[in-house]
Amino acid sequence: MIVVMKPDATDEQIRHVLQRIEELGLKSHPIRGQYLTVVAVIGDEPEPVKQALATAEGVEKVLPVLSPYKLASREAQADRTVVRARSLEVGGAKIGVIAGPCSVETRDQIMQTAEAVREAGATALRGGAFKPRTSPYSFQGLKTKGLELLAEARERTGLAIVTEVLAPEHVPILAEFADVLQVGARNMQNFPLLEAVGESGLPVLLKRGPAATIEEFLLAAEYILKTGNTQVMLCERGIRTFEDHVRFTLPLASVPWLQEHTHLPVVVDPSHGTGRASLVTAMARAAIAAGADGLMVEVHPDPEHAWSDGFQSITPAQFRQLMHECRAIAQTLGRIL
Amino acid sequence: MIVVMKPDATDEQIRHVLQRIEELGLKSHPIRGQYLTVVAVIGDEPEPVKQALATAEGVEKVLPVLSPYKLASREAQADRTVVRARSLEVGGAKIGVIAGPCSVETRDQIMQTAEAVREAGATALRGGAFKPRTSPYSFQGLKTKGLELLAEARERTGLAIVTEVLAPEHVPILAEFADVLQVGARNMQNFPLLEAVGESGLPVLLKRGPAATIEEFLLAAEYILKTGNTQVMLCERGIRTFEDHVRFTLPLASVPWLQEHTHLPVVVDPSHGTGRASLVTAMARAAIAAGADGLMVEVHPDPEHAWSDGFQSITPAQFRQLMHECRAIAQTLGRIL
Amino acid sequence: MIVVMKPDATDEQIRHVLQRIEELGLKSHPIRGQYLTVVAVIGDEPEPVKQALATAEGVEKVLPVLSPYKLASREAQADRTVVRARSLEVGGAKIGVIAGPCSVETRDQIMQTAEAVREAGATALRGGAFKPRTSPYSFQGLKTKGLELLAEARERTGLAIVTEVLAPEHVPILAEFADVLQVGARNMQNFPLLEAVGESGLPVLLKRGPAATIEEFLLAAEYILKTGNTQVMLCERGIRTFEDHVRFTLPLASVPWLQEHTHLPVVVDPSHGTGRASLVTAMARAAIAAGADGLMVEVHPDPEHAWSDGFQSITPAQFRQLMHECRAIAQTLGRIL
Amino acid sequence: MIVVMKPDATDEQIRHVLQRIEELGLKSHPIRGQYLTVVAVIGDEPEPVKQALATAEGVEKVLPVLSPYKLASREAQADRTVVRARSLEVGGAKIGVIAGPCSVETRDQIMQTAEAVREAGATALRGGAFKPRTSPYSFQGLKTKGLELLAEARERTGLAIVTEVLAPEHVPILAEFADVLQVGARNMQNFPLLEAVGESGLPVLLKRGPAATIEEFLLAAEYILKTGNTQVMLCERGIRTFEDHVRFTLPLASVPWLQEHTHLPVVVDPSHGTGRASLVTAMARAAIAAGADGLMVEVHPDPEHAWSDGFQSITPAQFRQLMHECRAIAQTLGRIL
Repeated sequence: MIVVMKPDATDEQIRHVLQRIEELGLKSHPIRGQYLTVVAVIGDEPEPVKQALATAEGVEKVLPVLSPYKLASREAQADRTVVRARSLEVGGAKIGVIAGPCSVETRDQIMQTAEAVREAGATALRGGAFKPRTSPYSFQGLKTKGLELLAEARERTGLAIVTEVLAPEHVPILAEFADVLQVGARNMQNFPLLEAVGESGLPVLLKRGPAATIEEFLLAAEYILKTGNTQVMLCERGIRTFEDHVRFTLPLASVPWLQEHTHLPVVVDPSHGTGRASLVTAMARAAIAAGADGLMVEVHPDPEHAWSDGFQSITPAQFRQLMHECRAIAQTLGRIL
Repeated sequence: MIVVMKPDATDEQIRHVLQRIEELGLKSHPIRGQYLTVVAVIGDEPEPVKQALATAEGVEKVLPVLSPYKLASREAQADRTVVRARSLEVGGAKIGVIAGPCSVETRDQIMQTAEAVREAGATALRGGAFKPRTSPYSFQGLKTKGLELLAEARERTGLAIVTEVLAPEHVPILAEFADVLQVGARNMQNFPLLEAVGESGLPVLLKRGPAATIEEFLLAAEYILKTGNTQVMLCERGIRTFEDHVRFTLPLASVPWLQEHTHLPVVVDPSHGTGRASLVTAMARAAIAAGADGLMVEVHPDPEHAWSDGFQSITPAQFRQLMHECRAIAQTLGRIL
Repeated sequence: MIVVMKPDATDEQIRHVLQRIEELGLKSHPIRGQYLTVVAVIGDEPEPVKQALATAEGVEKVLPVLSPYKLASREAQADRTVVRARSLEVGGAKIGVIAGPCSVETRDQIMQTAEAVREAGATALRGGAFKPRTSPYSFQGLKTKGLELLAEARERTGLAIVTEVLAPEHVPILAEFADVLQVGARNMQNFPLLEAVGESGLPVLLKRGPAATIEEFLLAAEYILKTGNTQVMLCERGIRTFEDHVRFTLPLASVPWLQEHTHLPVVVDPSHGTGRASLVTAMARAAIAAGADGLMVEVHPDPEHAWSDGFQSITPAQFRQLMHECRAIAQTLGRIL
Repeated sequence: MIVVMKPDATDEQIRHVLQRIEELGLKSHPIRGQYLTVVAVIGDEPEPVKQALATAEGVEKVLPVLSPYKLASREAQADRTVVRARSLEVGGAKIGVIAGPCSVETRDQIMQTAEAVREAGATALRGGAFKPRTSPYSFQGLKTKGLELLAEARERTGLAIVTEVLAPEHVPILAEFADVLQVGARNMQNFPLLEAVGESGLPVLLKRGPAATIEEFLLAAEYILKTGNTQVMLCERGIRTFEDHVRFTLPLASVPWLQEHTHLPVVVDPSHGTGRASLVTAMARAAIAAGADGLMVEVHPDPEHAWSDGFQSITPAQFRQLMHECRAIAQTLGRIL
């Protein structure tokens, strides 16, 4: 950590900072420059220390030099984590593809979709049973009935089930039916939920919040990892920006950046990441080309009659084409899809 | 709702849209323009209808014309809502001021702060007992012990207690000690939590998520209002933008905009809204001048030793000065503080 | 254009709007709904009319239904524009690659780079002679001397020269040496400059401003097209968002979106679009996979000693690898690189 | 400047960095911490040095500790700059108010507005003659004819004239008629223009670009100051964010932040900063309460018939009320308006 003093900081203010560092159990290293003094602090950088120093008089700013996430970092683990759940494998040479409808609606709809996506090469089935909806007047999901239908679809197709959990008290029922628990973008910093899914021991798909920095994203993963659960997939699903021709802006540079800085696998969701069916295939291709370890795609047999997210769902036929194109690109990079 | 067809939409595609509107139980009104056809849809605009039409072939986009929030709108209630909790009143001529530390730390700290802010004119005490923290390695709050200290501070000062709730299962214990339940920015779209605080019957302070549009903010309030609980305060606390000299960007135009469009009172938090103690007083003044119905300010007797958020906390002396300046501005606008 | 009246708009206010529309020479079509009245306006949507109606009393908002750009739209021209300048071709099956240093520094540097990128398959050479720099204390370019070196590099390699122009009065000198005039991101809405480059008759590479909506981007192109110059390439180079691990956020969904809505070719700049050399290759691959018609990449023989933008420049060896990987992906999409 | 090495940087990489620092003529100061090594660099922080070091192998990042702007900083000048142009004074106890229409349209319009705003207490008249417009199909200004009308209005009212300049070659004609040259938001980084207005010797009103960081804003001012022209006003006019209920987000915390870090006066434009007439007065009040040194407000005698920006223009009557309310607030802060 580097404490940058103001150009007009007094000697007394500098002494006070040095003393505080000592009180906080760390070693300091002051450097008087031509224009101002900086103080290097040796050792860990706990949040309270950073805050204490930032608040001292005469301090302009405190610059952290260490990553605040530990378990998620490349330093903690040199090998890449591979997440496995039945048919799904994400993080190795094989690229995992999670596909299915936004919401489970009817037995027909989910069975038909499950079979179609499996045939096209998907390795897991997505489908919401407990739905977080912006408006209280929107369809809120079939709840337990939806979970039962997902389990039935798994029975039939062998696909692993990925479904979202909204509250810690739902974890037990979800854990009964699902293979992977999804934490949605709106809940990325719902800390009791992160702890509860961590403790479930199930693999977790953690979606990036639309206003979360990469560092906040990795700290959210850290909450799960800290419970001892290491089966965590990071899912880039778009951020909120000023762009108004898309629902969210899909910042694919987070894929290679995350792969440089963390051992956790990275999945990309081009459906939420664009919010327009006509852009999904191009962005799925781009995600694979950027090096993504997995895809999550909304597929619906009849998007015009979908109960939610129809505008960003593609049809089974479009999904087959998407898989075909992505497979060819994956191959050029030596990966299997 | 207006359905805008693509310039090259076929007659069949237009007929299909008209038929779908009828199937969905609504009346349509097509208008053939010089360049393209638009179809006005008469009546309500339920989300699924909007989505169904957006997904039909030949449709360029669907433009909603009604607000998706109902209970929160000015049309639903012409009179402004006044939220009351003991000493706190927000939404009338009187401006409510909620002040106190980020976290409850010790008995001394909270008692000293409570007395200082009451003397300076605050009408409620804030203080976190269950803390949402970006890093799992940061202080997570005193939990129940913190609530007991808050209740003791209320006993001593008569100030209403405002404190954050993190999960539906915490609502009962919080409700035992608090006068107002705060839903934090990270939980603005934690829908089970919104329902749980709504059902508690207690007044709620709902903070805007840092990436939430105003419409999403009002729809989150709608979740609470829909439970029958009408005592909802909206709190603007800053949004995430590219600005890096502040922690968040405080967009004060949301104050007059919300007052035009909703009957719910609007509170501003200049502490989180800037993230720098040196900017808090100026932005508190600006909030009052913009017409805010209340303020929420972090005050700590010794920010340098605070266990959290010290960098954005002001001292009791600075708070007295803030109140003095804000009072003078409130007066020029015919309001009482 | 649709005029949405406020729910409490009076009959007189509605009559006034209808009368205004007539005065403005357009036909109106009022529709009284269950909650409010909307007025469809038939015909063109000139900006002043939109503004006049938005300003009338009782009007909530005005919703345009037509694109404000004309010459740039798919309706204006069904066939995709192909931009050609010597060795460079962008917009057809062939993907154009513009590579070279941020700035022209020395004869050796530019010749060495030009030869290296040509060998690797680049079809044009980039290099700044007149440099826009955030700080007045940074290197401002070799100016005319730089242009001469670029011309010499063209002589030697046959590569087309793409270089930035900063002011209308520089257009003549630039036009003497360059094959393509580049309008930089900071100048996307420098309207006198857009007109001057349009009138030069030379092909133009127009970079998207980091805060420009896609609509503003196309309207900037419209300024150039309106001069009669149809040789315009659009260049996506990243937008400004809250992300702080990259210099800019590269929103690749603009590639397929632009290809749906305009006939102009789309080039992607992964160097500025990430600001980190280690991310450039992955994002170049992603751009090609998303369907980009061209790439613009900063290459420097010795990034550590570059006079500008070294941190986002790749070496000739890295560029060869990039071309190799992008070529394989292009092939899977039936394109030539 | 602090160079942060990667945790796995080799000794050789560290030695290379130390050697590079020496080569670049600076002194280094390496500190080996528990997890990684940082190298403090003593002395100036020229951009090329920062870039060179950021590009060296084994370097994670380079953290600047000095402000890159010099002449604009508080260290360069302790006293606040007061900008003066005839009736206008900005930066002292007196608050300057620049009011008038978006564009000069007709003699009647500009004379009527000039007299109305002067009577209400404005100290300068704004009005565009050369207009930057997003669409080439919008009204582009009366040009020289507009300047003549502005000069006539000055003659009649004594108000200083503030008007925008679009290109270096227009500076001479503008300088003939105007008292203050305005550099618009779109041109904040039009460097040849900044140098040209600087060299004119006239006071300059520099608007913040909607995607400019505060640091970029001050570096743009630095371009003007470097010509020797010290009469520079900074104008906060809103930034581009995801908010869609306003045209721009007005981040008023930039007012106190700028006053901490620069000696230049700060003007706020609540008209562009909101883009909605109904929000202008509240935000003008907020700006004054935040400590702004000046206001810039669009006023039009008949917004519904304005040729541009009618939707964000207020009437003379509304402006009188705005001045009345702002004056009362200014008084509570000991300032004169």
